[in-house]
Amino acid sequence: MSNRYEKGMEILKITNKDTIEEVFKELEDIAPDLGRFVVEFPYSEIYTRDGLDLKTRELITVGALTAMGNAETQLKDHINAALNVGNTPEEIIEVIIQISAYAGFPAAINGVKGAKEVFKSKNLLPLKK
Amino acid sequence: MSNRYEKGMEILKITNKDTIEEVFKELEDIAPDLGRFVVEFPYSEIYTRDGLDLKTRELITVGALTAMGNAETQLKDHINAALNVGNTPEEIIEVIIQISAYAGFPAAINGVKGAKEVFKSKNLLPLKK
Amino acid sequence: MSNRYEKGMEILKITNKDTIEEVFKELEDIAPDLGRFVVEFPYSEIYTRDGLDLKTRELITVGALTAMGNAETQLKDHINAALNVGNTPEEIIEVIIQISAYAGFPAAINGVKGAKEVFKSKNLLPLKK
Amino acid sequence: MSNRYEKGMEILKITNKDTIEEVFKELEDIAPDLGRFVVEFPYSEIYTRDGLDLKTRELITVGALTAMGNAETQLKDHINAALNVGNTPEEIIEVIIQISAYAGFPAAINGVKGAKEVFKSKNLLPLKK
Amino acid sequence: MSNRYEKGMEILKITNKDTIEEVFKELEDIAPDLGRFVVEFPYSEIYTRDGLDLKTRELITVGALTAMGNAETQLKDHINAALNVGNTPEEIIEVIIQISAYAGFPAAINGVKGAKEVFKSKNLLPLKK
Amino acid sequence: MSNRYEKGMEILKITNKDTIEEVFKELEDIAPDLGRFVVEFPYSEIYTRDGLDLKTRELITVGALTAMGNAETQLKDHINAALNVGNTPEEIIEVIIQISAYAGFPAAINGVKGAKEVFKSKNLLPLKK
Repeated sequence: MSNRYEKGMEILKITNKDTIEEVFKELEDIAPDLGRFVVEFPYSEIYTRDGLDLKTRELITVGALTAMGNAETQLKDHINAALNVGNTPEEIIEVIIQISAYAGFPAAINGVKGAKEVFKSKNLLPLKK
Repeated sequence: MSNRYEKGMEILKITNKDTIEEVFKELEDIAPDLGRFVVEFPYSEIYTRDGLDLKTRELITVGALTAMGNAETQLKDHINAALNVGNTPEEIIEVIIQISAYAGFPAAINGVKGAKEVFKSKNLLPLKK
Repeated sequence: MSNRYEKGMEILKITNKDTIEEVFKELEDIAPDLGRFVVEFPYSEIYTRDGLDLKTRELITVGALTAMGNAETQLKDHINAALNVGNTPEEIIEVIIQISAYAGFPAAINGVKGAKEVFKSKNLLPLKK
Repeated sequence: MSNRYEKGMEILKITNKDTIEEVFKELEDIAPDLGRFVVEFPYSEIYTRDGLDLKTRELITVGALTAMGNAETQLKDHINAALNVGNTPEEIIEVIIQISAYAGFPAAINGVKGAKEVFKSKNLLPLKK
Repeated sequence: MSNRYEKGMEILKITNKDTIEEVFKELEDIAPDLGRFVVEFPYSEIYTRDGLDLKTRELITVGALTAMGNAETQLKDHINAALNVGNTPEEIIEVIIQISAYAGFPAAINGVKGAKEVFKSKNLLPLKK
Repeated sequence: MSNRYEKGMEILKITNKDTIEEVFKELEDIAPDLGRFVVEFPYSEIYTRDGLDLKTRELITVGALTAMGNAETQLKDHINAALNVGNTPEEIIEVIIQISAYAGFPAAINGVKGAKEVFKSKNLLPLKK
């Protein structure tokens, strides 16, 4: 196991400790290297960089995946991660609502549905306000 | 409740009277303002504008969502709305078939699948021709 | 030349008589069959179908290409075609504005910019209202 | 039945013999012409062209659909087709992994998930590596 | 002029004071209402909401537009806005680099090119590190 | 300079020897790490993998970027690379034409335009057939 892998796993244990096993297990017998790349590139080389904290990074990923609208599972993983690194559910919803202006209402509504599943599983609903 | 909200709700009662409650209920405890924005912006400010009738507007939305291919639920809602404002199932299918030339066959086939679910639930199948 | 080709060219002479030569000329020495496919499939087999008139079909294409946001030249060709088959500039702008709700404001603003180039070249500006 | 239809069906019997019936059945009572267009255009006019063999063509389609990320069913059909024309599961996974660089990790991971379903149904897992 | 319009213009004067005139001028003779909607909806109703500060909001928009990859002008406007509300060029670049993992390297490289134009026009290059 | 970087540069010298300098120069004063990531991840870790040769890999990238339709510069770079590793212009055009079925005609036509620029600069036009 490389240094890069270990460095990436340290971040993943903070951001996605509850779902990471499942993703790797799913890739194990078919494309284990793709799992390794995810650890070694985004988590080891991007999320560890100075200049933006993990809280902001996860909000940005939530916004981007909501806008793209074609990665429901990963969006939920990153909503989860956004909570794990200290964002409030209300902040996450603000990001998703904002995306309606840039990628349209369907993308934003689907983003909220993803958030709802994650928040419900963590007993975070109803939100304040 | 603002004037804009009421104006938007009048349109929504015409276009989506059977699904609107459910969408708002889903947003209620997590992002009620997003539901309000949908009423106050597209329905109140766009669908009420002169220059295009509701029949044409709903066909255009069906075409756009089919092309984008990442908003299955909303596509079905608008196929439903397209029927509610007076389009025939055959006209809706024409729109979806046409999209194959601009966004490819997978997008069009998935659009037809969405239409099939809506038409089936309203006993509109098989189509003429 | 096949029947299908001739049938498609008849439509293209109505919708895009001013730009069609240029598209074919561009494809001539590199992918002439792609030009032939455009004539024989969308124009011959889709735009000639019953169930939607050319006016509505071109508005739907304008809406879809505005939403996709990655085909500026083709969007302008279809804005042009939409005019050629009898739509007013105001109707075309209504379509593009409506797309803001489904694909976001940047897509709609870029659609309007495309329309502006086409309308300007035909001395159609400023629009009424 | 046209010549073009028959020519396309010959290819489809090679690439998708196990799923083709189902697709056509689904379109039968709602948009049979869309099914016919799929046979007559991509399968009859594109996949029969010289210059690329079916093996390479199916890998390219798998790559494109993985990158687009909004056509899960069709991606699985083409992963299946890629196997049917002689690609190994390992080659298909290489294509999908490569897409991570051009369309991001979520698209690639979702592509692998699609491949996993197809490979599993054919008892091809675990892959060699 | 409505309250909503004035409220939105106050934000726009902070975020885009140097480019806003131009956008409105471009829309003036063709789709002035689209300009009004931009002021009244995203700027008046979203960017004024509690829960996220303007600094974070602009980074999220930069990330989303980089990921979508089809709105170069608007991306540059929001890179500009991100600077205007207090983000450093380095933070903006971090956002764009991060998007490579979710939407691929081409999207990220094109985002950097947009940033380069904006930073150059403001004499912010070379960046530190 | 890491081993991974050197390994990636060896591939890049084969695929993009004529454009690579320019890309790195453009990133140098603003996001040099993004350039490094491109070398170390896709070129070092993906393009060097067994299971697909460079010829096939570059065709797949051309297909994916044509389908996505929002990365004109990178598409041209990879069309160039596809030639550099031994594909004929005719094979590249076959890939792009095939994409019309999956991402629509505008994407394919824009792909051909990109190819035309590259082929022209190398005196490869007109193509055979």
